[in-house]
Amino acid sequence: MHNVKVYVTYKDSVLDPQGEAVKGAVHRLGFEEIAEIRIGKYFEIKVNDSTQPIERVIEEICDKLLANVNMETYRYEIEEEA
Amino acid sequence: MHNVKVYVTYKDSVLDPQGEAVKGAVHRLGFEEIAEIRIGKYFEIKVNDSTQPIERVIEEICDKLLANVNMETYRYEIEEEA
Repeated sequence: MHNVKVYVTYKDSVLDPQGEAVKGAVHRLGFEEIAEIRIGKYFEIKVNDSTQPIERVIEEICDKLLANVNMETYRYEIEEEA
Repeated sequence: MHNVKVYVTYKDSVLDPQGEAVKGAVHRLGFEEIAEIRIGKYFEIKVNDSTQPIERVIEEICDKLLANVNMETYRYEIEEEA
């Protein structure tokens, strides 16, 4: 069993209007020191041991389902569970 | 300037129907080894230096805006930017 954490974010070249809106709300709360907010998705995935390499499983799931690879990029961390 | 990464997830006691739906889709793609998927939000925040401690700023923003503390929990990492 592995625990995998996947982070999906917009590519830097893609505008993030949701992040801009949240930044505006934060400024209205009085936190003028916030310079930028970008919003992404975060997945915690538990993977049972299988015959396939876990990296290939995770990358295929990300490419096909979790991330829109035209606009988004992802990175992941794999942790062995005791 | 600091880079802060904030992860907002449902508390373990809260059902995550979106994660369950994604898990179903992953199984239909043929990845039966996926045991669980939980979905959260991920924020990358750039914070200018200010007179307030950055931890207090981040926690106040999370409590008031980024997380619903009744159902969600959050953690954050602060990185110094060169």
